[in-house]
Amino acid sequence: MTATESRPGATPAGQAPSGAPARGVQSVKFSFYRVADHVRRAPAAERAAIGEALTALLASSSERMLTRVYSTVGTRADVDFLLWQMHDDLEVITDWHAELLRSPLGAALDRPHSYLSMTMRSQYSNELHEGARQRERLRSDGGTNKYLFVYPMAKTKAWYELLTAERQEMMAEHIAIGHRYHDIKINTTYSYGLDSQEFVVAFEGDDPGEFLALVRELRDSRASRYTLFDTPMFTCRLLPAEGLAAHLGLAGANG
Amino acid sequence: MTATESRPGATPAGQAPSGAPARGVQSVKFSFYRVADHVRRAPAAERAAIGEALTALLASSSERMLTRVYSTVGTRADVDFLLWQMHDDLEVITDWHAELLRSPLGAALDRPHSYLSMTMRSQYSNELHEGARQRERLRSDGGTNKYLFVYPMAKTKAWYELLTAERQEMMAEHIAIGHRYHDIKINTTYSYGLDSQEFVVAFEGDDPGEFLALVRELRDSRASRYTLFDTPMFTCRLLPAEGLAAHLGLAGANG
Amino acid sequence: MTATESRPGATPAGQAPSGAPARGVQSVKFSFYRVADHVRRAPAAERAAIGEALTALLASSSERMLTRVYSTVGTRADVDFLLWQMHDDLEVITDWHAELLRSPLGAALDRPHSYLSMTMRSQYSNELHEGARQRERLRSDGGTNKYLFVYPMAKTKAWYELLTAERQEMMAEHIAIGHRYHDIKINTTYSYGLDSQEFVVAFEGDDPGEFLALVRELRDSRASRYTLFDTPMFTCRLLPAEGLAAHLGLAGANG
Amino acid sequence: MTATESRPGATPAGQAPSGAPARGVQSVKFSFYRVADHVRRAPAAERAAIGEALTALLASSSERMLTRVYSTVGTRADVDFLLWQMHDDLEVITDWHAELLRSPLGAALDRPHSYLSMTMRSQYSNELHEGARQRERLRSDGGTNKYLFVYPMAKTKAWYELLTAERQEMMAEHIAIGHRYHDIKINTTYSYGLDSQEFVVAFEGDDPGEFLALVRELRDSRASRYTLFDTPMFTCRLLPAEGLAAHLGLAGANG
Amino acid sequence: MTATESRPGATPAGQAPSGAPARGVQSVKFSFYRVADHVRRAPAAERAAIGEALTALLASSSERMLTRVYSTVGTRADVDFLLWQMHDDLEVITDWHAELLRSPLGAALDRPHSYLSMTMRSQYSNELHEGARQRERLRSDGGTNKYLFVYPMAKTKAWYELLTAERQEMMAEHIAIGHRYHDIKINTTYSYGLDSQEFVVAFEGDDPGEFLALVRELRDSRASRYTLFDTPMFTCRLLPAEGLAAHLGLAGANG
Repeated sequence: MTATESRPGATPAGQAPSGAPARGVQSVKFSFYRVADHVRRAPAAERAAIGEALTALLASSSERMLTRVYSTVGTRADVDFLLWQMHDDLEVITDWHAELLRSPLGAALDRPHSYLSMTMRSQYSNELHEGARQRERLRSDGGTNKYLFVYPMAKTKAWYELLTAERQEMMAEHIAIGHRYHDIKINTTYSYGLDSQEFVVAFEGDDPGEFLALVRELRDSRASRYTLFDTPMFTCRLLPAEGLAAHLGLAGANG
Repeated sequence: MTATESRPGATPAGQAPSGAPARGVQSVKFSFYRVADHVRRAPAAERAAIGEALTALLASSSERMLTRVYSTVGTRADVDFLLWQMHDDLEVITDWHAELLRSPLGAALDRPHSYLSMTMRSQYSNELHEGARQRERLRSDGGTNKYLFVYPMAKTKAWYELLTAERQEMMAEHIAIGHRYHDIKINTTYSYGLDSQEFVVAFEGDDPGEFLALVRELRDSRASRYTLFDTPMFTCRLLPAEGLAAHLGLAGANG
Repeated sequence: MTATESRPGATPAGQAPSGAPARGVQSVKFSFYRVADHVRRAPAAERAAIGEALTALLASSSERMLTRVYSTVGTRADVDFLLWQMHDDLEVITDWHAELLRSPLGAALDRPHSYLSMTMRSQYSNELHEGARQRERLRSDGGTNKYLFVYPMAKTKAWYELLTAERQEMMAEHIAIGHRYHDIKINTTYSYGLDSQEFVVAFEGDDPGEFLALVRELRDSRASRYTLFDTPMFTCRLLPAEGLAAHLGLAGANG
Repeated sequence: MTATESRPGATPAGQAPSGAPARGVQSVKFSFYRVADHVRRAPAAERAAIGEALTALLASSSERMLTRVYSTVGTRADVDFLLWQMHDDLEVITDWHAELLRSPLGAALDRPHSYLSMTMRSQYSNELHEGARQRERLRSDGGTNKYLFVYPMAKTKAWYELLTAERQEMMAEHIAIGHRYHDIKINTTYSYGLDSQEFVVAFEGDDPGEFLALVRELRDSRASRYTLFDTPMFTCRLLPAEGLAAHLGLAGANG
Repeated sequence: MTATESRPGATPAGQAPSGAPARGVQSVKFSFYRVADHVRRAPAAERAAIGEALTALLASSSERMLTRVYSTVGTRADVDFLLWQMHDDLEVITDWHAELLRSPLGAALDRPHSYLSMTMRSQYSNELHEGARQRERLRSDGGTNKYLFVYPMAKTKAWYELLTAERQEMMAEHIAIGHRYHDIKINTTYSYGLDSQEFVVAFEGDDPGEFLALVRELRDSRASRYTLFDTPMFTCRLLPAEGLAAHLGLAGANG
């Protein structure tokens, strides 16, 4: 597991070496959509028109910001796909969503889950990954794995009552476990005050069975005692943006 | 952070210098709306008519009471916009909502979240902000920031078992943290007995990343141990009332 | 606060002077309704017909039993009005509701919340209100205030483990606080075994700001530690029954 | 209160005198239905056809198994009636429900609540009711009272950590309280592993005020400390099966 | 009870004899469906066409992977049937679900519950069933019993704080109880990180009364203290895949 949310060194937790507290940098949006029931019942031509609008809007998102598309068909019953967007300016993201709502897609997609977060320098140092120092943006080596495993998360109040050194020690154990799973990449983003969870955690990997083993092992770590919630959990499969409409049955050929 | 909910001095908590307990003064309503699915599917002319009714009703609200409009498009999936209204007389607010329901908007807007509260003199003194003394109305310098961060809140029972001096001490720590974030304004309102939360808290600021840092830091404060719930959290973007219809795709030009 | 749920004297809690345990006397029904979305979209004539049926049914209820009507428009988003009915015989109440369901109103009103309860002699004595002795029916001086504040309530298990004398002492503190708010009337009714809450509590008053202060003060009382839940809370505004249809946009003049 | 769920004697709890553990005997199904909104809006002839199908299906159920019908109109907002069915073979019950779904009723009835359970010999002895010995089927003297009070129930984990003798002692206190309410009959059924509750409890009586008093008194008993949940609670009124359609507005005369 | 999730021997828990931690092997999907209301109201020919599509898709699933079909009609109100699928490659499962959504069935079936899991070597040894050693795939003797009892499950945090030996001891007690119920087969699968539960447990048996007795007895075992949740519980009845459409009223003969 390669961590993106780490910062080594002797500086007090939560503060940059300069003394300024860490703050949010990039805005990150996880939007889970489901094709509305009335669209599934619509004639093929209507579905194809919606599919074309979807493809065009995704292309527009990719031009403006980091955009990734994942299918949740067959792993979740309440959603069909995940759209993952990142930009330094939250308005670029929200402007795109306003366009979507004003388009024919606004009536065609249900929106069962949505998570807003930001990247931020981690509170905790990572002895195993020097390159993670000062990282405060989303990792640049992502988007290549077959699966994304996502969940919103919050810590218990007891966690925030621990001393910084205690938390650091537990996070070191947590990081050491993850380090043994080299093929799993972690992206931790922060939602304090912006949305109802404290974190949105997204793991990338090619093998669900390996990720299952990692999370099983993390259950025994001390930091896990301080998890308030980490559900719903989503297993998502990477799709090329231009293939989403066909995958969802919104392409002309499906008529 | 500039606090609006504070009162310095030696008077016992919960009582005005005159000895009378603090009581609610202004009524405050946070109404979250979502354009109904059947409106999103309606012809352009019908949507435009609804947009015109919306613009007229918002103008009517602004004439009668303090009225602010925020978009939640792209930050939340369950709501599209927030209407924030304040008046000394609750009936002025409820009369307006009865008008909305009797208008074509009554069938056009879903109402997923609603929070009723009042302004009230704070129980706690604020050594850092003398001007906050005796403040029992909504701050007059609001409505200028790009973002509003809103959530309903309740304290645990353990909080109400603490001595007044203990609560005051924790609130002082809380206030001191906020004081370092000069660009964030706080509006605390009270809902005891009127609605299902105890408080509705609304922060104004221009930078989500700064607010994220503030809430992250507050998690370590002692008062945070006594939060029963503080969700759902809403990140809202200020809009001119007359621009809302177009933003939502309810303006003629979107046909 | 004038209490309706009290009984002074030396008799053991939960028993009448004769030794028989208190039992339910009058049946009380709180029914929260919302005009269905399809009615809001219906033509004016159809809405007016529904409004006429509503007015006639309310008149019929008033003839048969104590009936009060309150609007929740603008204070709650999930309901439009509250119908409060009381009768010695539960069947009179349920017969009326069967009539409503068989009428055109059956398809016109959603029913998001419903609370069934009974009046019963209180377990606790009230030193401050001798007239409350042996009261086991709904107070006769109600229905005149502008607002009704209603919530379902249950006590924690720890409450029922306390000695009778301890509960009595806490209720005395509770009653003493309420006694200082002369303009607020309380109606406590009981739901043990009949519905999912243990109590339905309804306060009458003219000023939300005063009620807010009362509930704020009660939070510091010892009895409040033993509240398991007291939500959802409803702020309701008294309406003449014959004015409800027009208030809801179901009168002919609104076409 | 006459208990149906008891077994006296010196045999260890949970085991028959022969040493075999108690096991489920009769299958019991509590099905709560609500007339769908589109049926309430349908023309009278269509509603009458649905009513006829309902009457025929209830007659068919009565021929095959013990069948009782109760109205919840006016006591609950989410359901209209309860169908209570019992048979030694679960397939007889499920076959009937498959018939219902294949009939026009399948589209006409919403199904908000459903509880599956079985009769089983009680774990606890009943010194006050020798006739209850070895009872492992539903009582034969039921179905004659005006009201049925039903709720699903589960015990806390702490209950299952108690010694058998401790549980027996608490149940004896519980049974003694109930014994003083001669006019209330109790039917306890078991759902371990079959449905999301552990028990479904159904009380029969003619007077809601008396049942209210019983449940109020039981709150002070020690066994009540170990209740994890006992909601939702349903107050149901006995109806002749052939009168249900008319009661619900599904009879020809209501057109 | 014959356990499929066991591994005897002296190797540390969570690790194979070779030292590698156990990892997920086969993907398992439990999909609960309900015929949509609009399908129940559709003409017979339309329902028959949907039934034919369902039969064909189930046949296609059976060709590609282990596929079992169960009815929940009459035992649950929120779902009509369960589709249980297993394959070494998760993509084979999700591809099939994408096909279903693109077919006419996509609009015909609601999807109220869905559980994704994997098979994995158990953490715990089973002294009573040597053949279970190293088992890490679904048992091969399943699919023959009349009933399946399914629930999602998670353990409390306290469970993961126990020593491995303590957990092993409790699981041995748990396994010994199950061993006495020879006619009940257990299938334990794992969801850590993949879905919102930690386990999906599925028991096969012919007699609900016997399974009720087993779960009743397990409530007294020590391991049960560490169950965080084990609901919703589903009682499912085995159906031949080709009989499902007729069972649901989607066959031509039901017109």
